[in-house]
Order: sequence, then structure tokens, then C-alpha cells
Amino acid sequence: MNWAVIMAGGVGTRLWPRSRDQVPKQFLDLLGQQTMLQETVQRLEPLLPLSRVLLVVNQDHASMAREQIPGLPAENLLIEPARRNTAPCIALAATVLRQRDPAAVMAVLPADHYIADGPGFRRAIAAGAQVAAGGHLVTLGITPNQPHTGYGYIQRGAPLGEAGGQPAFRVQRFAEKPDQDTARHFVDSGEYYWNAGIFVWQVETILGELSRLSPSFAAALAGVAAAWQSPRQAGALLAAWDCVPQTSIDYAVMEKATQAAVLPVDIGWDDVGSWATLSDLLSEDKQSNLVHGAGLHILLDTAGAYVYTSPGRLVAVVGMEDLIVVDTPTAVLICPKDKAQAVREVVKRLKADGLEEFL
Amino acid sequence: MNWAVIMAGGVGTRLWPRSRDQVPKQFLDLLGQQTMLQETVQRLEPLLPLSRVLLVVNQDHASMAREQIPGLPAENLLIEPARRNTAPCIALAATVLRQRDPAAVMAVLPADHYIADGPGFRRAIAAGAQVAAGGHLVTLGITPNQPHTGYGYIQRGAPLGEAGGQPAFRVQRFAEKPDQDTARHFVDSGEYYWNAGIFVWQVETILGELSRLSPSFAAALAGVAAAWQSPRQAGALLAAWDCVPQTSIDYAVMEKATQAAVLPVDIGWDDVGSWATLSDLLSEDKQSNLVHGAGLHILLDTAGAYVYTSPGRLVAVVGMEDLIVVDTPTAVLICPKDKAQAVREVVKRLKADGLEEFL
Repeated sequence: MNWAVIMAGGVGTRLWPRSRDQVPKQFLDLLGQQTMLQETVQRLEPLLPLSRVLLVVNQDHASMAREQIPGLPAENLLIEPARRNTAPCIALAATVLRQRDPAAVMAVLPADHYIADGPGFRRAIAAGAQVAAGGHLVTLGITPNQPHTGYGYIQRGAPLGEAGGQPAFRVQRFAEKPDQDTARHFVDSGEYYWNAGIFVWQVETILGELSRLSPSFAAALAGVAAAWQSPRQAGALLAAWDCVPQTSIDYAVMEKATQAAVLPVDIGWDDVGSWATLSDLLSEDKQSNLVHGAGLHILLDTAGAYVYTSPGRLVAVVGMEDLIVVDTPTAVLICPKDKAQAVREVVKRLKADGLEEFL
Repeated sequence: MNWAVIMAGGVGTRLWPRSRDQVPKQFLDLLGQQTMLQETVQRLEPLLPLSRVLLVVNQDHASMAREQIPGLPAENLLIEPARRNTAPCIALAATVLRQRDPAAVMAVLPADHYIADGPGFRRAIAAGAQVAAGGHLVTLGITPNQPHTGYGYIQRGAPLGEAGGQPAFRVQRFAEKPDQDTARHFVDSGEYYWNAGIFVWQVETILGELSRLSPSFAAALAGVAAAWQSPRQAGALLAAWDCVPQTSIDYAVMEKATQAAVLPVDIGWDDVGSWATLSDLLSEDKQSNLVHGAGLHILLDTAGAYVYTSPGRLVAVVGMEDLIVVDTPTAVLICPKDKAQAVREVVKRLKADGLEEFL
């Protein structure tokens, strides 16, 4: 693996009201001193210099991305004119990479995930590159530690031998987010892994499969390839983005590909999908309260709370358990930890009500 | 009764973070379009012109009081140099009144109570004046509708006949805030009433009893009486306030007086002692959510909530029951309704931590 593509185009609605249209989840310091994007870049550093990292962002966030990753070469920042899900994003990155390095092997990484075991992550990516050299489309499969219903699952098939000391497998099938019973069956079987959306493949392999399985991508991106690094680049990208299918790489390629492989890993991965998840990741003790932010707080007779405070403001909580309070300069969210997934419904309502200033 | 004295010197800590040192409870529009002080004044209007109303406020709130009650004659606003509980406040008002009208009968009214039945209230005050004409210190006794442990109680004694069609009684004794069992015994006996701190008496009677039972008041206020309406008024008041006992009228006089009387009333009285009480007063249906304030709100899967919002801010609540959220421009309070009394502990903590800007 000699290139990494970081996808930083997500929205993170379930981490509203901190994650907003103008500053989505991956640009926030949710887990510590650095933003999730910065942590993603640093996690790669022992493996790759920044000159080998492509970063794909929405045009609204380009200047913020430059500020957060000042060492990134200008030509390594790919700016999407609009949000189009992962398939167009990956197709663009692969198209650009092929021009610079036709033999490139690329890892694809979301910018907004937590990974506890950095060395394990790097070993997995390096092992994935070995498997990818055989023409496989490699997905990291996260060993599940609970029957989570919020993730897609990957069932392993026939063994593909070892890479870097870890066994790899053909993918038997990709399974959508399951119900509780199905999830338990998956986990108990020992054959299923969480789909983390982390991939390793040769640029030629992914572009070949994209052309074969979703020909409209090849058509849309041919113009981009021809115009890249020319004065026509921006116009070509806009034109391509008008007609490119808005779909995920899983749907466009992985679920139909014959050469999909899964590399099981156990690297302390989490997609930080909600305030409750974030709180769990950071709390050693679920009884204790966890407080973040630059504001003030008073918690009386309160346990298991996650509280975020903003400068100049005070959050006071009395007599609550397992509560989430996220207080920003313009909005405050209050919900129990076991309802944290429903925060996306708040965002839907804000959109439906036209309350753009809070999105 | 030909005069009313409205006491507006309270703090209302249990209604933090709206009730603050600079704008306490009685100056807020907690219950509707008008402030509690304005409602208290209007409740009196059919009975008395503003020229017969004295208003006692802390010096920090004098200009706010003038703005809220613009028709009040300047000489009817009594300004306390510092907070000294109800006995000094009432002694000052009675001292000033005696100079203007030695035969005055005065009603004493807190500025921060809710009374549903205005006509009933006025009938009770008028009846109290009849009883007071006989030299009694009259307290309104609120017929209890539950064994409340947050109020003091008054036990009635021998009948004193009727006034305005309502029976009056001598006071047998005043009882401190009881425990639950004692409160239930009080209510079941039919002999006990809540002490609402609403009094009617002749100026001569209260000043006589003050002199007899708490001689230090007479000493402290003699200088004030002599200097009133002279250039020495402010200095005399400051001097008196330095040495006057900081105590309640109940403790200084009522509990020891021989001529105390109680007039039982059922006028929909409430001291609006907490956010939960306020919410109950205003909700016809305890299941429904009650939202106040000029901000925005989104309540999903939430029932029985009281939410106060501030301009330009949004409160979002997901999956909660019987919750109080009070969101002000600088602080947000979150607590279950059944813990609303504990809000005073938050205020204590703020004081202890020196966080004056939030008090």
C-alpha cells in the first residue's frame, strides 16, 4: 500500500448540535485535543508521508481542512462540489491517483472513526495491501464484541491464506444492518464481521470493477480524467457530479464484486456513531460523569452523564442518570444515553422546519 | 383596610436560572404576560388605588420596580439598603405609614405569590380588616389541599365570630414546616392552615406588639421615624439597618403575640416555590409539555416537560419524561420535576464556588 485516501465528506448528524453542516463531526475535537481528521492523518504517519495521502472534502470545508492539515500538498486535497456518497468520492480519488501512479495501491479510510490500536491498524492496512496485490478488493472486517444492530456485517467465505500473520478470507456476502436476533446469530456464528468501510485495493482493480459493475461511473469520470490539472478541471468535475450516481461503494461495487476479500481485525474500532458511543469510549467507569468543553458545570446527585459545555455558559444538572447534555452557543441537546440514536430525528425535524441556522 | 404593603425583597433561588440576584422571581413574567409584582398590584386595584400601596424593594431593584409599576407615587416606594427578612421590612413600612395615617389598617402581601381567585382574595383581605379593627393581628390561613411539607402551618383556636361571611379564629399555634406524617395529621385534623405570609392589622397594633415583643425594633426605627422625609432619611435608614435584627415577622411577633387571629381562605393560592409548581399551575394536563420563552424548541418522544427557551437559542429534548429545562442566555438547568426543590442547592454551590456572574 503506497497511498491512502481519507474521506472527510460525512455529516455526523447524530452528533448534533456540535456536528453541524459547517463543521461536521470529523473536523471536531470530539475525543481529545485533536480533531478526528487530524487523528486519522496521524494514525497513518508511521506508514505513509503526507505526500502520499489524498484527502477528499466537500467544498464547504476545504479551507478548514487546509487549516487542520497544513502539511498536506495542495494537489492532494480533492474537493467535491457536492455530497454524493462514497462511490463517486472513491472513483474520483482512484481516477486522480491512476494518473499520478498507475500501479498505486490505495487504502480508503473514513475521517471520523476511532481506532484504539494504532499499530494494529497499520499492520492490518499493510496486510491488506499484500492481499490486494492479488487483485482482491479488501475490506477490514471488525471482530464484533456485541450484536450491534447499527452496522452492516460481512460474512467470510473460503480462506485466502495469511497476510502479515493474519488470515484473510473471500467475502461470502455483505449483510445489511440486522435486527437483534439476526445480529446475535451473526456474532455467535463467528463468521461475521462489522463492515467498517475501510478498504485496500489496487487503483486498477477498483476502477476496473467500477467500469464493469457501474458503467455510468466510467462515463462520468472520463471527462474528469482528461481535464485534470488543466483549466477545465473544475468544470469537468462539476459536470461529472451532475450525472454521477449518488451511491455507496458497497452497493456500487463490493456487494457484486467477485474478488472481494475480508481481513478480520480487532483494533478497538468504533465509528463514534452517537453521543452515547462517544461517552462509552471515553469513560472507564460508566457510573461517573464525563464533562467536556470550555464552559462551567454543576452536577448534583447525577451519575453516568455526558456533558459538553461551551465558553461563558453554565450547565447545571440535578438528579439525573445516564443523561446526555450537549450545550453549544446556540442550541442545547438533552436526551438519555439509550435514546442517543434518535438525535438524527432532531436534525430531520430542523430540516423539515427550515431552521437552517441550527443545522 | 385602607393601605397595602407589598414586600418585593425576596430572592426566589429555586427558580434559578431565570430568577437571579439582579432580577429575582417577583420581577419576572413567570406566569404570563405580566410580572408577578405587576399581577400582585393589579389584584389589589379593585380594592385600593396605587396611592394607598407601599412597595418595599431592595435598592438593587428600585429602578426596575419603578419601571414595572409606573403609576406608583415616588413616596410609596420604600427602598431597603440591604436584605433583612420580613420583620424589619414590615416595621419600616408600618413606621412610615403611621406618620401618614396613624389610624391606618394595612395588608401585608408578598409580591411573588400566585392567587387564582382574585375576588376571593379581595373579600378575604376586606374581612381581615374587620377582624383587625378589633386589635387582632390577622393571618390568612390557606385551606390545605395536600400534606405539603414545604410550608409552615397555623392551628386555629377559639372562634372569633364571622367577618364578611367567613369565620375567624384565634391562633392556637404556629407550626414549623412539618415532616410527612405530621403534615398528614395536620391536614386530616381540619384545624390547620398553610401560613402564606399574608397579614392584615392596624399599624398601631403591629408597632405596639413589635415594641413589646422585640424592643430592639422600636429602638432601631425611632431614628428612622424622626428623620423620614428629611435630608437625614437615607443616613437614618442605613444606621437602623446596621443594627436591626434580621428575622421574620412570624418569629419576631406572630408566634408570641396574644392577639393573633387566622382567617381561613380557599383562594387558589400558591407560592410558586419551584419550577415543578409553576409547571403544575399552568398545565391542565400533566402529560402534555409546557413550553415558555422566546426561543425555539424541538421535543421528540417527550411528555410532561416544562421547557423555557431564550431568544436565538434552541432547546432539543429527546425521550424524556417529567423533565424541567430552563435555558437562559448564560446557563441551562436540567432536572426532573420531582427534584425541583434541589435547585436551591445549585445556587448554594454557585455561591460557594464564587460564580457570581451566574447568580
